[in-house]
Amino acid sequence: MALLTRIREPRDLDRLSPEQLDRLAAEIRTFLVDAVSKTGGHLGPNLGVVELTIALHRVFDSPKDKVLFDTGHQAYVHKLLTGRQDFSRLRAKDGLSGYPSRAESEHDVIENSHASTVLGWADGLAKANQVLGRDDRHVVAVIGDGALTGGMAWEALNNIAVAKDRPLVIVVNDNERSYAPTIGGLANHLATLRTTDGYERFLARGKDLLERTPVVGKPLYETLHGAKKGLKDFIAPQGMFEDLGLKYVGPIDGHDIEALESALQRAKRFNGPVIVHCLTEKGRGYQPAEQHEADRFHGIGVIHPDTGLPVSASGASWTSVFGDEMVALGREREDIVAITAAMMQPVGLGKFAKEFPDRVYDVGIAEQHAATSAAGLATGGLHPVFAVYATFLNRAFDQVLMDVALHKCGVTFVLDRAGVTGDDGASHNGMWDMSILQVVPGLRIAAPRDADQVRAQLREAVEVDDAPTVVRYSKGTVGPAVEAVGRVGGMDVLRRPADGTDRADVLIVSVGALAPMCLEIADLLDKQGISSTVVDPRWVKPVDEALPGLAREHRVVVTVEDNGRVGGVGSAVAQALRDAGVDLPLRDFGIPPRFLDHASRKEVMAEIGLTAPDIARQVTGLVAKLDGTSVEGGVTEAAEAAVLPGADEPGEPAEAAEAARD
Amino acid sequence: MALLTRIREPRDLDRLSPEQLDRLAAEIRTFLVDAVSKTGGHLGPNLGVVELTIALHRVFDSPKDKVLFDTGHQAYVHKLLTGRQDFSRLRAKDGLSGYPSRAESEHDVIENSHASTVLGWADGLAKANQVLGRDDRHVVAVIGDGALTGGMAWEALNNIAVAKDRPLVIVVNDNERSYAPTIGGLANHLATLRTTDGYERFLARGKDLLERTPVVGKPLYETLHGAKKGLKDFIAPQGMFEDLGLKYVGPIDGHDIEALESALQRAKRFNGPVIVHCLTEKGRGYQPAEQHEADRFHGIGVIHPDTGLPVSASGASWTSVFGDEMVALGREREDIVAITAAMMQPVGLGKFAKEFPDRVYDVGIAEQHAATSAAGLATGGLHPVFAVYATFLNRAFDQVLMDVALHKCGVTFVLDRAGVTGDDGASHNGMWDMSILQVVPGLRIAAPRDADQVRAQLREAVEVDDAPTVVRYSKGTVGPAVEAVGRVGGMDVLRRPADGTDRADVLIVSVGALAPMCLEIADLLDKQGISSTVVDPRWVKPVDEALPGLAREHRVVVTVEDNGRVGGVGSAVAQALRDAGVDLPLRDFGIPPRFLDHASRKEVMAEIGLTAPDIARQVTGLVAKLDGTSVEGGVTEAAEAAVLPGADEPGEPAEAAEAARD
Repeated sequence: MALLTRIREPRDLDRLSPEQLDRLAAEIRTFLVDAVSKTGGHLGPNLGVVELTIALHRVFDSPKDKVLFDTGHQAYVHKLLTGRQDFSRLRAKDGLSGYPSRAESEHDVIENSHASTVLGWADGLAKANQVLGRDDRHVVAVIGDGALTGGMAWEALNNIAVAKDRPLVIVVNDNERSYAPTIGGLANHLATLRTTDGYERFLARGKDLLERTPVVGKPLYETLHGAKKGLKDFIAPQGMFEDLGLKYVGPIDGHDIEALESALQRAKRFNGPVIVHCLTEKGRGYQPAEQHEADRFHGIGVIHPDTGLPVSASGASWTSVFGDEMVALGREREDIVAITAAMMQPVGLGKFAKEFPDRVYDVGIAEQHAATSAAGLATGGLHPVFAVYATFLNRAFDQVLMDVALHKCGVTFVLDRAGVTGDDGASHNGMWDMSILQVVPGLRIAAPRDADQVRAQLREAVEVDDAPTVVRYSKGTVGPAVEAVGRVGGMDVLRRPADGTDRADVLIVSVGALAPMCLEIADLLDKQGISSTVVDPRWVKPVDEALPGLAREHRVVVTVEDNGRVGGVGSAVAQALRDAGVDLPLRDFGIPPRFLDHASRKEVMAEIGLTAPDIARQVTGLVAKLDGTSVEGGVTEAAEAAVLPGADEPGEPAEAAEAARD
Repeated sequence: MALLTRIREPRDLDRLSPEQLDRLAAEIRTFLVDAVSKTGGHLGPNLGVVELTIALHRVFDSPKDKVLFDTGHQAYVHKLLTGRQDFSRLRAKDGLSGYPSRAESEHDVIENSHASTVLGWADGLAKANQVLGRDDRHVVAVIGDGALTGGMAWEALNNIAVAKDRPLVIVVNDNERSYAPTIGGLANHLATLRTTDGYERFLARGKDLLERTPVVGKPLYETLHGAKKGLKDFIAPQGMFEDLGLKYVGPIDGHDIEALESALQRAKRFNGPVIVHCLTEKGRGYQPAEQHEADRFHGIGVIHPDTGLPVSASGASWTSVFGDEMVALGREREDIVAITAAMMQPVGLGKFAKEFPDRVYDVGIAEQHAATSAAGLATGGLHPVFAVYATFLNRAFDQVLMDVALHKCGVTFVLDRAGVTGDDGASHNGMWDMSILQVVPGLRIAAPRDADQVRAQLREAVEVDDAPTVVRYSKGTVGPAVEAVGRVGGMDVLRRPADGTDRADVLIVSVGALAPMCLEIADLLDKQGISSTVVDPRWVKPVDEALPGLAREHRVVVTVEDNGRVGGVGSAVAQALRDAGVDLPLRDFGIPPRFLDHASRKEVMAEIGLTAPDIARQVTGLVAKLDGTSVEGGVTEAAEAAVLPGADEPGEPAEAAEAARD
């Protein structure tokens, strides 16, 4: 790492020779494989952009110029070149984020790891430069071919293209696969640009003319551009981008630093919007990744760096339980079809796709289209199941509401990675779905607590043919089965008070995977002499009709959910109780309304007080105060500190602090 | 109307001669101008699609074939041809909807009036036809040129284009303006297709060859298509669509029924995805519309049919108050820029655009891009104000959350037409914003109650430079000023109990324009001997820190908002009280969680019980029961019916019923 360790900031790249730059690229690859195999993280995407990132930082002057990365998981090389070379705690608490982070560096701009945003950001930044007369500043946006399938990229392209006098460089990082083989018309167009015979001939003939010619300004660019147009019969047509009004440069070998720099220099000097089309290879230079056709080590856990094999095997995941049940359902019902937004394997639809290739649709990074085309599929007589990470469904909120729900379509949304996911940081936590979906009329939400419930509730969901249904579950390994000891209405009773009745001090409403935590809360309350019932509604929207009646048999209601507190299940339960005239004290525990820094799930849960000891302590305080205070008129001032969620108090049980260090 | 009245269903069109079809078109135009000038509604868009709709229903066999309209406001002609000719109560309660409606006709599919959805629906329906082997069914989607700028249209195009064997006809209804002159790269491309010299020559030379030749199947289509390609040097390049893999037919004169039918027949027989590009003229055949360059009578109130002038002038609107204040702000602060999503005039930005043309951006029908580019603008040092109808912001939820809020960008969202709007039906009510935006960390929401507050709170909003702010107001004429009588924390006290203290039976939390209603509730309660305080928090998110303390001085808290009850301001207030340990009975009044049928705002409000008498009655019932019952353990069974929001009861005050008939 003789060269890499000498790079403290991008300008340190200026004095390196071409030969040194190649060595630097090799050092970076070695560093990445070594570091990421120890911590887990996004490996393949970063191995693909080593040369591109070096070239970007040699040609542009960050942070004065803004170098923007879409999705952000390919910013590791950028981090290495901007003073961040300690990867030992990558994605761990207090370590480097797995995405750009403004807190880490002035070279970072976009922290959002949802795809296809970069062109919108770039358009805004370029407009600001124009309004403020900052003619010397450049904006360059790096976007993958997959992310171009996202609708907001198209919206941005239209806006960027129309302003001929507003400089903006779009680098298309085309690796022929974003998360998975990308589909769609655009992909075909890019493939044509890449693969025609013409391209081979173009490389042989045009290379000197187009890529090596020193450029001294716009006129020459235009000349070159004209020259390229003259070669149009040999290379593929670039109609689409040029029809939109975007100048096009490419395709460029994305692993040839000199060619990249030449193209980027030309683009930089062109005084308007321009696309630079770079061909890169995901996983480049790391054999296990290059040979792994499925996703080229897009995101990995801890692996052995030589073999690329996982160091520890994990148990059955929520995802795989869903995936297997989908195959079973597919065999039973020919009307069931599956949809993914460019994440076939990660959401567990791989097996279904293999067995039913004609009944599965990968729509690209296009959650809006996934939802609206699902409305069409349902109206056409099928039952679509759209499996997606919980956080990404936010993209389709309007379509879920206005296309699926308004038209009473039987569409099932399966939300994976719901709740606190932790190490991917703020924008990957699935903490919004059970709040925003509460407002959707007719929509039903299932929060299964274990593998059996995933299977059972998925089956219940696909039986509903006149309303949208949602099945949401956590990331990672599914826990042991949690058996019901009874049933009230449609709700599973998980624990009754010691006297065997349904009457107790506290009713604990448990949501999904937090069932074991809720049982632990009940145990802790028992030790304080407080009796409780634990109930799992299974379907958390609508609130079960039997809940108000059950609540009446208790003095306090507590809700516990792995979702934002604001407008979540707790709020829905509170409203249902109010509507039924049940004015009991209620405390709703969930994720506080703020963005969460990356850390392990356990660390995050401890930090936000979503642990059994924290909750038991607060409930104990509330019950103690109720014993001495009339509810009417509110509890006394003195009692407030004890019952305020998240309030710090001495005397926290030792288990909580211990658990948090795991 | 000799011909029109004989058309009961589309197949009645089959026996009309070309001459009769032209007469029918003229009859329809006369009918539309006459009918819509009486009721108000969308006139210009429908005048533009008379011939197109006739041709569609002659060539395709609805409802077996699915004829889908994007946005739906141009479906009046479709209604006339499918058995719906009583327009006397268009958009009024129990009359025809202003959009397609499944309840009205089996010929209607998409009720959602948000733009750019039709291609997603069409893709889903075409996929269902394929999976179910229904080879004889066709899907045809009509979409405007403006709607093609929406991201989800792009997502759909990519998916449609890739399935070469899945028939789907896309009719681009190109009127060179959707709501306003459309911008963007795509618009330029379409303009090129329309306006080159080549097109004129093409019309002269190629008309017989291309548009009149009878077509007998795919091979001939291909021949023709090849012939058209041969003409490529004369006409404009169709690169973009063809690069995506979509066959392109056009441009076609959208007012020539025979030419339209010929093109649609060719498209229908082509066994794959195909675009038919039709040029139409918005407002066609109605002189006042044709001469009204700004929007060609896109949507109108009641007008005089001969002059096109409004029958009654209305007072100052919420929109115009905002628009004027933006101009004032623009003069004071050079860093303020404005954004609209293809609705410059309707959202009140016309004056700002005229005075500051370099500081206003019309991004097209592209709410996602509006939000994310605003994040870029803010990061670049400006303060963007994005003015948009409340219901359309749903499209940008993820971008508001992940781009604007996560990055702490000072962006102001101005939500017009918030709350019940009524006559445009389910998808135009702005009833979701104050619920889904509750979950966005750091975001602040202002709900001004009158014109003064619009101005004041807009100014407060643009002062915030480290978080998103929202200013939301109603549709229509702004009411008289409502003066504050005091202040508690940041909240305006609008009414104190008779004894002048801040202590009373009921605390009424009034949101925005419902202030007069809340004052009326207080008056009605007074008559029952129940004292109350009315407070307007002005900023409803976050909940004012002084609210729990004020609530403690009351026995009951009531919230009233023109927004969905679920997860709205009422829920937020309830949560804030719980968090402060204030366990008072609370009742939250708002819009119930269902889609609302079209009717006047007043009728809708009466139907959902959001009136002063309805609310006063329920609060009276609750207070009466509290007087006789301990809160702990809930109110008695007998009391429940009285306090259940929306419960029907005899003895409803007469005013409510009267008001509802207005």
